[in-house]
Amino acid sequence: MTSIKIKETKALIDLLGKASAAASNKPDSIRSGIMIVAKKNEITIRAANETISVQLNAKDITEANEDLIFVVPAKLFLDMMKKLPKGEVVIIVEDKNVIILVGKSSYGISTLAIDEFPKPVAYEEGKIFQVEGPEFAQSLSAMIHACSDSETRPILTGVHIVSNGKYLTLIATDSHRLMATAVPILKETEEFKNVVVPKTSIKELTTLLTDEKEVEFSISDNQLSLKTDGVLFTTRLLEGSFPDVTKLIPTTYESEVVVHREEFLKALDRTKTALGKSGKVALFHVMEGTLPTFNIECKTEITNVFEELFIDEAGASISIKLDVYFLTDCLQSINSQKVRLQIAGTMKPMLIRPEIQGATQFGLVLPVR
Amino acid sequence: MTSIKIKETKALIDLLGKASAAASNKPDSIRSGIMIVAKKNEITIRAANETISVQLNAKDITEANEDLIFVVPAKLFLDMMKKLPKGEVVIIVEDKNVIILVGKSSYGISTLAIDEFPKPVAYEEGKIFQVEGPEFAQSLSAMIHACSDSETRPILTGVHIVSNGKYLTLIATDSHRLMATAVPILKETEEFKNVVVPKTSIKELTTLLTDEKEVEFSISDNQLSLKTDGVLFTTRLLEGSFPDVTKLIPTTYESEVVVHREEFLKALDRTKTALGKSGKVALFHVMEGTLPTFNIECKTEITNVFEELFIDEAGASISIKLDVYFLTDCLQSINSQKVRLQIAGTMKPMLIRPEIQGATQFGLVLPVR
Repeated sequence: MTSIKIKETKALIDLLGKASAAASNKPDSIRSGIMIVAKKNEITIRAANETISVQLNAKDITEANEDLIFVVPAKLFLDMMKKLPKGEVVIIVEDKNVIILVGKSSYGISTLAIDEFPKPVAYEEGKIFQVEGPEFAQSLSAMIHACSDSETRPILTGVHIVSNGKYLTLIATDSHRLMATAVPILKETEEFKNVVVPKTSIKELTTLLTDEKEVEFSISDNQLSLKTDGVLFTTRLLEGSFPDVTKLIPTTYESEVVVHREEFLKALDRTKTALGKSGKVALFHVMEGTLPTFNIECKTEITNVFEELFIDEAGASISIKLDVYFLTDCLQSINSQKVRLQIAGTMKPMLIRPEIQGATQFGLVLPVR
Repeated sequence: MTSIKIKETKALIDLLGKASAAASNKPDSIRSGIMIVAKKNEITIRAANETISVQLNAKDITEANEDLIFVVPAKLFLDMMKKLPKGEVVIIVEDKNVIILVGKSSYGISTLAIDEFPKPVAYEEGKIFQVEGPEFAQSLSAMIHACSDSETRPILTGVHIVSNGKYLTLIATDSHRLMATAVPILKETEEFKNVVVPKTSIKELTTLLTDEKEVEFSISDNQLSLKTDGVLFTTRLLEGSFPDVTKLIPTTYESEVVVHREEFLKALDRTKTALGKSGKVALFHVMEGTLPTFNIECKTEITNVFEELFIDEAGASISIKLDVYFLTDCLQSINSQKVRLQIAGTMKPMLIRPEIQGATQFGLVLPVR
């Protein structure tokens, strides 16, 4: 009987987890399945939704006595594999069923039609760039909150990647706030712009970049491809022109202040508690003087909060009205202990930068009128 | 200015948490508030919803310079107190606002009308019984899952308490399953029956019984009262007659089997995964023979599970169809390493008992036809 012996259950579950995340959530779609191909000591797992396609390979975690190929519902198969009792795991395919055997217990799942499963999207040669996997993953993750949720301007639901040959600039904006950062390219490469990766692809992509190593991407017409030892990942790019946001970003500031990021976040959390369901906006004040401070004020029908935050570096007096939730998102995607707030004016965007020498990351939040 | 200095913020938050749980969830009701009365080094917190009334007292965790009384929205006040920045906390009342001061930051919350706040329900003298607080709390908690959710027979939404003078019998049932246990009474007392505590009151009651000590309850006409050093708790009892369930409980069994509780729970979890949204029922088999086993079988359109569980003590062959979710609830409320399953017949309820000498607790699950 054709069977796969599982030698490393944990490694297989990890692989299934990464692949399943790329499967569609629509239970009736063939795309909610994963394809598993086993050949001797090698296993290949494929998944694809409307946007991304993933193919993962591993050696020596399984042992097949004959070539085996099947498609099963991704989430169900993963859940079952995660919950198996202790013992040696063997997978067999019988008629239209995959059967997981552990001791005398058996867990059968109907297979899906192999020929209906989408063909893997091929790696497309194009403009190449190489980056540090984990650094790129972290930079991309920090962008997601600033992407738009609205389909009225679909191009804003992605992260814009621009290359000047030496580093990538990542930008995301929903037109109320913006996040940007730069990531060094490891070998000098071609310039490009208007590469916009859907935010839905980024979560999957980042889970594939966790190893400490260089990874190579290729950008063709409407596709971003990644190929490493065990991974082939492609994502469709968003069509359209990403807007020029440089005009949005102030370059001179009326006031700057340095605050402790965690304390600022906690103060914002209290502000959110006080606002409850009656609003999202608070007033922020930089106060100069012998005892310079950074204050937060908010008022609802039943609450009235005044926060005074310790500051590290004082600035000129100014007030600005900002969305507390946008500020929270931005501060949560920054890693530094302290952040520098740069206020260009009461009616101009505020910049938030990690207070770290040489940091390229920054967030921007537009004031509320 | 009238003010309360908070000396033990953590203890106060704990007290507020216990009281707030008794406040109503309806945000527009005065019952969503808590009343705070501060007098020198003493603080009293009151809350009451439609069913329960709680009054908690503590000494030396606050210091008021004058007598102070106010009513504030319970959840909001608790949330704010939990999230305060580090530093000395002082509470003042100004006009119709309670203001929490920490350093130069202030958090104001509008007060609610004191005269609209429900009067505390008085402790009512009645039939007295004394029990170990934590033991009683644990026994009550284990009942909740078996209470009915349906208002078609309101009496089944509570836990039935019966006293024979020496111990209490607790019973809960939704007519598809049942949970029962006995709790020793510390001093011999009067007999009573038909005391039915709403399950919504039990969660609150159990949080008040966590200290290792004897507690005294009083049962009057339609009220259960608890009075300890710092706690006055009352709950309305459910009206009506709790059904006689003794006829439901089999006393002879066709088959008995002892299984490992955790392993049984894990197997049920796999069964639930395999059932997905297509059902809740599985078939359970006791198989005698040279290698006696306890098996679980379930089948849906896309899955087919056969589980073989190790058993400690074999029984006569029998099969029974049971609700997997009811079994899970029952096993989760039992603490023992092993459980004894007592099957009275294919169409009769199955009993589940902790495999511990002298245990009085048992669950009962009716078969599915």
